[in-house]
Order: sequence, then structure tokens, then C-alpha cells
Amino acid sequence: MKRITFSLVAVATLASAVFFRAPASGHADEEAAPIFGIKIPPGYRDWRLISVAHEAGNLNDLRALLGNDVAIKAYREGKLPFPDGTIIARLAWSYVPSEENNKVFGRAQSFVAGAATNVQFMVKDSRKYAATGGWGFAQFTDGKPADEALLKTCFPCHEPVKARDFVFTRYAP
Amino acid sequence: MKRITFSLVAVATLASAVFFRAPASGHADEEAAPIFGIKIPPGYRDWRLISVAHEAGNLNDLRALLGNDVAIKAYREGKLPFPDGTIIARLAWSYVPSEENNKVFGRAQSFVAGAATNVQFMVKDSRKYAATGGWGFAQFTDGKPADEALLKTCFPCHEPVKARDFVFTRYAP
Repeated sequence: MKRITFSLVAVATLASAVFFRAPASGHADEEAAPIFGIKIPPGYRDWRLISVAHEAGNLNDLRALLGNDVAIKAYREGKLPFPDGTIIARLAWSYVPSEENNKVFGRAQSFVAGAATNVQFMVKDSRKYAATGGWGFAQFTDGKPADEALLKTCFPCHEPVKARDFVFTRYAP
Repeated sequence: MKRITFSLVAVATLASAVFFRAPASGHADEEAAPIFGIKIPPGYRDWRLISVAHEAGNLNDLRALLGNDVAIKAYREGKLPFPDGTIIARLAWSYVPSEENNKVFGRAQSFVAGAATNVQFMVKDSRKYAATGGWGFAQFTDGKPADEALLKTCFPCHEPVKARDFVFTRYAP
């Protein structure tokens, strides 16, 4: 019995070392987003990649979608709706031409990630967020949550993709 | 002593479950790239994100740079040169306008990842690859390695960024 206890401690230690090592962002004392009460999930910058995108226009960013383990498993298995516990993170950075890269290519063609703009999260909890398709929404800029007015626009915007459980991004092979 | 052995087995089991679960790509029997003898590293699709980029022009892709644990640690600590064992993966997908997203935004601004184009790897081994700055280079399209002629162009192209250990991509915060 003692032996089992010891090994569980060892496993827990390794698990925390693996999953929570040097979180690049996210602290327990951070402010929660309004309406949905979502905090920045610790260690989200370590999550696996779902896909990438570029939004031109006013947003003018490069973005990466990362998913926690529940999200990645559901994506890879093509499972819809996403199960409770799914969290999808959308990171974004300003869209910056790279003079350095362009010099090497011999022409202006390279755009890279500049400063971080903001980070958004979709959190699946089918009971808690029943009124918004089972999803809670949050956005943070430099750790500060966006206000209620902005968060109220999230779900209406995601409604057109109800058939994919309100998630725009497809998994990039 | 037995107790320690048991716990180490448990830890090893968890570690393999965490790091080697369902590799999205990479098989031991795949063909190695010429010159540098690099095979597709198993499980690279699970690695953590370094940054994203868009190459216009002939490449016309969206790309993500992922790093193995050695790479991510070195990036976050700002460690140069990258230590032996570093592997950087460059995934790329065709640059596709998203009609679905554009409809929601009310204008043409959204570009997403389409079909995978190819995947490239930089592998650090300062002895083995001493002639090319300590880096081995590889490119695979649908699992097939690129030929020698193409791989010979890699290092000359990376030479302008010698000051950053021949690596173009910066870590995205």
C-alpha cells in the first residue's frame, strides 16, 4: 500500500512537471472575464496546435488556435459536439512584414508574428453555458479581460457555424 | 529498492503516455532525407508552438513552427546557440480564403490553413552537422523526403541569420 502511495506521488509530480512547467502565462490570481467567469487557463501556451490563420482588415493579425487535451482528442476523432472540458485558445499577434526574411527571399513576401494582440478562449460546459450553445467566451489583453459588451457579441457571431458546434476553426492536418 | 523500481515504471508509463500518445504522423519505417539522414520525428505534430507566419508569392502558405522540448526551453530562455537535440519543425498549409468566415465578418478578410504542403525540420547536432552550422535539414511532402539538390539550398539560405544560430523564427510571446 505504501508502495502504491509513493508511486502516485511520483506520477503526480511528473504530471505537474509536464503539464504545468513554467507556465508562459496564466496566474491563479488573475481577473475573471465577465458574464462567463473564465480565467486564463494556466499553461495554455503549452497546448497543442489546432490550426493557424490570418485575418486581414482591421484585425490585421496572424493567429494560432491551440487546444487542451480534451479539445485535441475531439478534433482528431472528429467528435461533435465537443465534450465538456474542451478549451480552445485563440492567440493572435500583429501581422508584420519581415524585412530580414524578404532580403533572403529577394522579394517582399514574408509576414511574421509581431506583438501579441489579445487571447481568446472558448470553454465548453454544456450546463453552465447552456444559453450560449454550451460555450463560455473570454478575451484578455495583457491579462485584462474584455468587458461585458464585447463578450455579448461572441455567441451571435459563432451561431452561423452551429453545425460544427459553434467552432469556426478546422483541424490543420 | 523495489518500491523505487515500481514508481519509476509508473513514471515511465505516464511519460510515454504523455509524450508518445497517438502520434499524428511519423513512422519508424519512413524514408530518411538525403545528405543529413533525417527521418520524420515521431509525434512532432504534438510539439509546442514557437510561432506562425505567412509566406506570400510562390509559396503562398500559412505556416507554424513547432519545437521539441529542447527547442522550446532554449527559445524561452533565450539560449543561443541552440543545444544539441533541438528540433524545429516547420509545418505549412496552402493559404486559403475562408468564404464562411468572410460571410460572418461581412467582408473578405479571413485566410485559413488548407491542405498541407510540406514539412521541414532543422535538427541540431553540432558534431554530425558541423559543416552546416551544426544543423541538419530535411523536407518531406506526404512523407516523401526532398532530394539532395533541394536540401543543398537550405544552409546557404539560413546563413544570413548566423547571429541567431541560423534560425529565422523568433518565439511568439
